[in-house]
Amino acid sequence: MALRPVQLKHLKNLFQIGTDEQVAKALDKIHPSDISVLFSELNEDQMKRLVDCLLLVKKAGKTLKELPEFILPDILEFIEIEKIAKIINRLDLDDASYMLTKIPENKWQTILEGVEIRRRINLEKLLLYPEDSAGSVMNPVTFSVSIEKTVAQAIADLQTFPERETVFYVYIVDGKRLEGVIPLRNLVIADSKASVRDIMKKNVIFIQATSDQEDAAQLVSQYNLLAIPVVDENKNLLGVIAVDDVIDIFEEEATEDIYHMAGLSGEDRAFTPVLTKIKKRSPWLLVNLTTAFLSALVILFFEATIAKVAALAAYMHIIAGLGGNGGIQSMVVITRSIALGEMEFSRVYQAIGKEMLNGLGLGIIGGMLVALIAGFVEMSPYLGVIALVSMVFNMIFAGFMGASVPLVLKWLKQDPAVGSGVFVTTIVDITGVFIFLGLATIFLDKL
Amino acid sequence: MALRPVQLKHLKNLFQIGTDEQVAKALDKIHPSDISVLFSELNEDQMKRLVDCLLLVKKAGKTLKELPEFILPDILEFIEIEKIAKIINRLDLDDASYMLTKIPENKWQTILEGVEIRRRINLEKLLLYPEDSAGSVMNPVTFSVSIEKTVAQAIADLQTFPERETVFYVYIVDGKRLEGVIPLRNLVIADSKASVRDIMKKNVIFIQATSDQEDAAQLVSQYNLLAIPVVDENKNLLGVIAVDDVIDIFEEEATEDIYHMAGLSGEDRAFTPVLTKIKKRSPWLLVNLTTAFLSALVILFFEATIAKVAALAAYMHIIAGLGGNGGIQSMVVITRSIALGEMEFSRVYQAIGKEMLNGLGLGIIGGMLVALIAGFVEMSPYLGVIALVSMVFNMIFAGFMGASVPLVLKWLKQDPAVGSGVFVTTIVDITGVFIFLGLATIFLDKL
Repeated sequence: MALRPVQLKHLKNLFQIGTDEQVAKALDKIHPSDISVLFSELNEDQMKRLVDCLLLVKKAGKTLKELPEFILPDILEFIEIEKIAKIINRLDLDDASYMLTKIPENKWQTILEGVEIRRRINLEKLLLYPEDSAGSVMNPVTFSVSIEKTVAQAIADLQTFPERETVFYVYIVDGKRLEGVIPLRNLVIADSKASVRDIMKKNVIFIQATSDQEDAAQLVSQYNLLAIPVVDENKNLLGVIAVDDVIDIFEEEATEDIYHMAGLSGEDRAFTPVLTKIKKRSPWLLVNLTTAFLSALVILFFEATIAKVAALAAYMHIIAGLGGNGGIQSMVVITRSIALGEMEFSRVYQAIGKEMLNGLGLGIIGGMLVALIAGFVEMSPYLGVIALVSMVFNMIFAGFMGASVPLVLKWLKQDPAVGSGVFVTTIVDITGVFIFLGLATIFLDKL
Repeated sequence: MALRPVQLKHLKNLFQIGTDEQVAKALDKIHPSDISVLFSELNEDQMKRLVDCLLLVKKAGKTLKELPEFILPDILEFIEIEKIAKIINRLDLDDASYMLTKIPENKWQTILEGVEIRRRINLEKLLLYPEDSAGSVMNPVTFSVSIEKTVAQAIADLQTFPERETVFYVYIVDGKRLEGVIPLRNLVIADSKASVRDIMKKNVIFIQATSDQEDAAQLVSQYNLLAIPVVDENKNLLGVIAVDDVIDIFEEEATEDIYHMAGLSGEDRAFTPVLTKIKKRSPWLLVNLTTAFLSALVILFFEATIAKVAALAAYMHIIAGLGGNGGIQSMVVITRSIALGEMEFSRVYQAIGKEMLNGLGLGIIGGMLVALIAGFVEMSPYLGVIALVSMVFNMIFAGFMGASVPLVLKWLKQDPAVGSGVFVTTIVDITGVFIFLGLATIFLDKL
């Protein structure tokens, strides 16, 4: 449970007046996840001291890995290289490799020199996997048992296995090749003289090391697993991805989806430095600017019409705005259905058709209201009808674009979310302006 | 692993020419998650037959629960009440209660009459918890061991426990009160004569039954648990929520966040009927329409200005559009940082300040470009300067609104995402139009 205010106060007090040993003793009773929050309240010197205290109780690595991904590099920068090497030496290999990727590559050599040789070779292998691949996030220290052994031997092996906390399944191998799996709970209740071969499940769900981490997470979620084994092309067991990492992967992917739709990069958080924000957001600003100029060109094309009836500028703004919003809604619905694997329950043309019909419905409701107000305020039934017709057509088009863009991106094997937002709103904006001002120009003498 | 095309073809063939028993035998070898996908390709009669075949191998419930949440009610409608009762009888209690919530309440009585009495009482208790509470998603059949027992006795209890698949931890109780926990793997390797009291961990992380399911999911994620025990106000053990349900909760919450920002309801998916879509989206359309009218009123207020210089309508459109997009970006960044618990690493005023400074930076970059083009195209340096100044102010304001709205909603203990999108874009739209047309009116004789 999160620290209570009184505990926090006591800890802060101790931090000011106590010795490192006293602080360390207090920290030893607290969950790393709760300790990690303390970093947000400390200055550089205090952070260094906190790390020293944590090192005394071998909790530094476990605590640091609980920090938000984009804060970790800043904090690691303060810590001396020898201390980082110590931390890397004690962490699970997947966490150690994660920690290294948060440190500038030019420091790796020096850090790895302080790491025990077998660990170092394993770490270097992990770092070679492409970013976001299953191999890059797996823990290569995996509990496996030879297919020739008995249940009693498997339990004895488990008792001497150093990283017991990460064992959810007993993987059965022939040489290195993955042949079967026994859930831990079945091992507990099995006859100790039975052969693991006889009680193992042969149909193991696994993932290739080079596959995307998201695919691994999907399999764990779909088949309600606690961990998924990672194998090479010959089905040799390389490592395992556990369910707690899967939750992290899902959170990361959900953020990525939302961010992509808004034209943001994943490294842009509340605490990101302003200059980084500006740098990351500028490219999309330019894309957005270019497309906004296209709308502006359409408006300029109808400059003479607006000069005659300036009120058109106001109604154009409503129609374009509602269209953009409608397009975004269709896009979010389809993108999310793709992400959750629900598109299998809907044909592509049906999904697009539904969004277009929804656009027709909302276009009629919204269009009637705009038409009524425009008609009465401007005392012009023609303007009302033009607003209604433009609104209906633009909302149908918004549904079409909102649904099609992510589906086409998916069909092209691209991320359905990247840039969809900017693209959909802009196109719908342009067509909305064009239909409305075009119709207004045709019937200009009636307005 | 998902069905290969050849397996799928074989299964479809068998479905056409084989007996129910033959189909059932084939289905018995396939994971429920893979079977569930078949429903998307069948008509009503075929679905009924598939359910009959699944009932033969006791897989109907497990398969149905893998269906997307919003499709399940449609399929359950086809199935006879007695068959549903049979399915409910066989499922884990949490899944059974989930299934019932997907059936109209007026059918519950009849279904529950077909359910074994102790199960029925448990089910009725579960259904009383508020929607989305921890109690409503927990499994009330939980493996617990009295604090007086030995390790050997605990293992013997486990061997006779009917729902072994859901056991990740052994919860230690005194009477019903939760006193400690032993991870299953520690039980395996413990001395069989030891008392569970001596090897249990006393500091158990738990959740109240009335708390939000999202809080339970956060705890499981934060402390890397496999399951979290659910207790009443006296810390009596009521049930457990396992990690696979936590993944579902996270996916649900991520969808909700994205949907709320776009003014959508969670029940709006690719396959949702059109009329439902229109009904669900109309209220937000009306909100959006009302706010769009406010922008329109501002534009109408400056009608005389636009009548003189019609090109202003085009540049106004660019400035308002870029501002809306900037506001959305700030809002997404802050909302996501709140959702991921990262705001602890950033002060509120710092976060708002950063988004405003980012707005200043992007406003200068974008504003200069707009100013250059407007200045040259319209041959009017004044228009250029007005565009630049409006853009800078509007982008700063966009950063302010985008960051503040979710933070204020959070401070008011509301969902930071609900309606933020519509509200932020509209306000920024109005101010953009106002600043630009206001400045243009002041300097109208120079344009």
